Amino acid sequence: MIESRSAGHAQFEATHILRGMSLVVQKYGGTSLGDADRISNVARRVVETRKSGNDVVVVVSAMGQSTDELIDLATRVSSRPGGREMDMLLTAGERISMALLAMAIRDLGVEAASLTGSQAGILTDSVHGGAKITAIRGDRVRQYLDEGLVVIVAGFQGVDPESRDVTTLGRGGSDATAVAMAAALEADVCEIYTDVDGVYTADPRLVGTARKLDEVSYEEMLELAGAGAGVLMARSVEFARRFGIPVHVRSSFHDRPGTWIKEDAMEQTVITGVAHDTSEAKVTVHGVPDQPGIAARLFGALAADDIDVDMIVQNVSTEGHTDISFTVPKEHLDEARSAAEGVLPDLEAKGVDVDPTIAKVSLVGAGMRNHPGVAADMFKVLSEHSINISMISTSAIRISCVIDADRVEEAVQALHDYYLPGEEAV
Amino acid sequence: MIESRSAGHAQFEATHILRGMSLVVQKYGGTSLGDADRISNVARRVVETRKSGNDVVVVVSAMGQSTDELIDLATRVSSRPGGREMDMLLTAGERISMALLAMAIRDLGVEAASLTGSQAGILTDSVHGGAKITAIRGDRVRQYLDEGLVVIVAGFQGVDPESRDVTTLGRGGSDATAVAMAAALEADVCEIYTDVDGVYTADPRLVGTARKLDEVSYEEMLELAGAGAGVLMARSVEFARRFGIPVHVRSSFHDRPGTWIKEDAMEQTVITGVAHDTSEAKVTVHGVPDQPGIAARLFGALAADDIDVDMIVQNVSTEGHTDISFTVPKEHLDEARSAAEGVLPDLEAKGVDVDPTIAKVSLVGAGMRNHPGVAADMFKVLSEHSINISMISTSAIRISCVIDADRVEEAVQALHDYYLPGEEAV
Repeated sequence: MIESRSAGHAQFEATHILRGMSLVVQKYGGTSLGDADRISNVARRVVETRKSGNDVVVVVSAMGQSTDELIDLATRVSSRPGGREMDMLLTAGERISMALLAMAIRDLGVEAASLTGSQAGILTDSVHGGAKITAIRGDRVRQYLDEGLVVIVAGFQGVDPESRDVTTLGRGGSDATAVAMAAALEADVCEIYTDVDGVYTADPRLVGTARKLDEVSYEEMLELAGAGAGVLMARSVEFARRFGIPVHVRSSFHDRPGTWIKEDAMEQTVITGVAHDTSEAKVTVHGVPDQPGIAARLFGALAADDIDVDMIVQNVSTEGHTDISFTVPKEHLDEARSAAEGVLPDLEAKGVDVDPTIAKVSLVGAGMRNHPGVAADMFKVLSEHSINISMISTSAIRISCVIDADRVEEAVQALHDYYLPGEEAV
Repeated sequence: MIESRSAGHAQFEATHILRGMSLVVQKYGGTSLGDADRISNVARRVVETRKSGNDVVVVVSAMGQSTDELIDLATRVSSRPGGREMDMLLTAGERISMALLAMAIRDLGVEAASLTGSQAGILTDSVHGGAKITAIRGDRVRQYLDEGLVVIVAGFQGVDPESRDVTTLGRGGSDATAVAMAAALEADVCEIYTDVDGVYTADPRLVGTARKLDEVSYEEMLELAGAGAGVLMARSVEFARRFGIPVHVRSSFHDRPGTWIKEDAMEQTVITGVAHDTSEAKVTVHGVPDQPGIAARLFGALAADDIDVDMIVQNVSTEGHTDISFTVPKEHLDEARSAAEGVLPDLEAKGVDVDPTIAKVSLVGAGMRNHPGVAADMFKVLSEHSINISMISTSAIRISCVIDADRVEEAVQALHDYYLPGEEAV
């Protein structure tokens, strides 16, 4: 996935070592760059990092709400905005923030230059609005670093080398840019600056005693991201894991350390955190004949419509028929229902029910592997609160239960109290 | 200046002729693209042109005041914004307008694609903020036209092929892009859409009887532009003249014809129009020894400071000394005074006076060549209104007088009444 330009890179590494510097990739999100004052604050932080003797590559998102404003303009001139021109439009957002940040850094006496995704050699496939990074040609970034510049790179965007068209990477794209750039440059660390302090044992807005984690393993972070912890998307964590890039998720508003995401986290507690997700809805197909091939046909139809399915549960068969339930993002519920209804005759199933008022609550922890009683305890805690479980799904280090949406706060609080008791709020 | 890629171009020409189409380059300014509704209006006009059987290339400026807003942001993060990063920032403006226009055109059922200056092959020198176009590699534009697309090109911007950095073309840059693109593609016409109806015999805000000109020659338009007629800058007119591109300056708010700028205008009246310019200030160096090389040293010093000098007048020598007066843009008056004062000892001159309250009023007309009495009449008209002339400068088809700024409206009205009498206001 990452193109290794060995000659250029070897030369870079040599310079890098001769100067005894670390290479730090920092990523700042839209809130951190929300106005001129915040951009100046970010510039000061970048300059501090540079003056501490590090080479610095900064990946930026678009300022504050500017992406939403551009999308709003697009919907006013077009009934079906999207594709190539939408990507051309949206990439103006990072162009503005990166140029302003480069100016602000130069104003503090440190040389800096900004590069678009295309200029920074971020090559992608051709899927407008949701492109995947296929390679990074880092030679221009390396050249600028060798010249002593701080390099600002536009997040969220790249270029399709076939069509030479600009692409965007979709949700979490700027984080993905930062981690991929860190991998391509073999950076020492990738720092993700955000408006929260790090990764918590539960959402601190729900659980007063939730504690910031100092460290979490890639594997646990992948499960937390999948279970609804919004701080970093699974695609970026997976990328960091594959290339062994330590990621430090931290606040852009103060200097205190955040959460390190790395191969083996020191804290091997049974439960790392309680995550929840209210963005999904449940679809149930009733009275499905219990025969081979049924699931393949149902989920084949959903895949053909590009609908992401998260949990899938098939109930015990009764009298040769079974129910299949699955969850999808709420915004795709109507399409999912249509797709399921479309294959009903083919499945010889009885009907389709949907429920948009669900929540998923998950326990994540690498120590779970050696503690087989965790799931039973979880069901017991929920039962003691009279919270009904409608779906269950597990991995080696995660247990997720689907419950009623209006019980999610109580469930998260109860599970946190049980598994992570007596911790002080930060 | 324009790179002719003969093979590619020949192929394009062949397609072009086979389809029996004309190639029209249209340029829309920021006011014409000021909001979503106006962008949709421009899209309708482009689609009409396309459906009339023309190939269409559209050059756009940034929306409304967006460039000023970006400059404002830059001044808030940097005490000295400019250079590479300012160009990176400002080029976001056209990126937004071109993508929105492409979407709006596609929404009307016509295929369209937008290209940045760099993607459209607009190569420039390396002068950030005021780059000159050095070549246009039109192959990507031609390819898209051959595929039947309307092509939207970002005005005002290009790329320096040496550094691969994005550049901007400075004032009037979008018009220059349109005319240069028309030249490179050998377009049949370059239409400049603006918020005025065309070129007038005088500023219609000052002179109620001012009349829109149907045609004006390149040569006259060059003089009018230099004399303060703001509708099209001299750099674009000169470009059109050199490559023989007919330019049609017209309103984006209605369909009536505007003013055609071309080689030989049909209307060979003595006086084409009365132009005025209140953007300049006057500098006078007193008591200069009347010796060779003095002017060279003075204006060499001004050129070294990048100060544009417009009119230069040297008075008759009295007792071996003379006065040299010149005009400069008001915003460069302080620098011009400093530069002149800096060479005073070297010139052995007596002092420097400045006057920011001047105006330049000019008569322009190709017929002037055969009517030697025009200048004398002009001085007489001004004299009859007791308007004092402090500087005079002439070309073959223009006479300009510097007068007091507070008399400019009266002077323009009087000259228009005398030379272009009895015309109805449009």
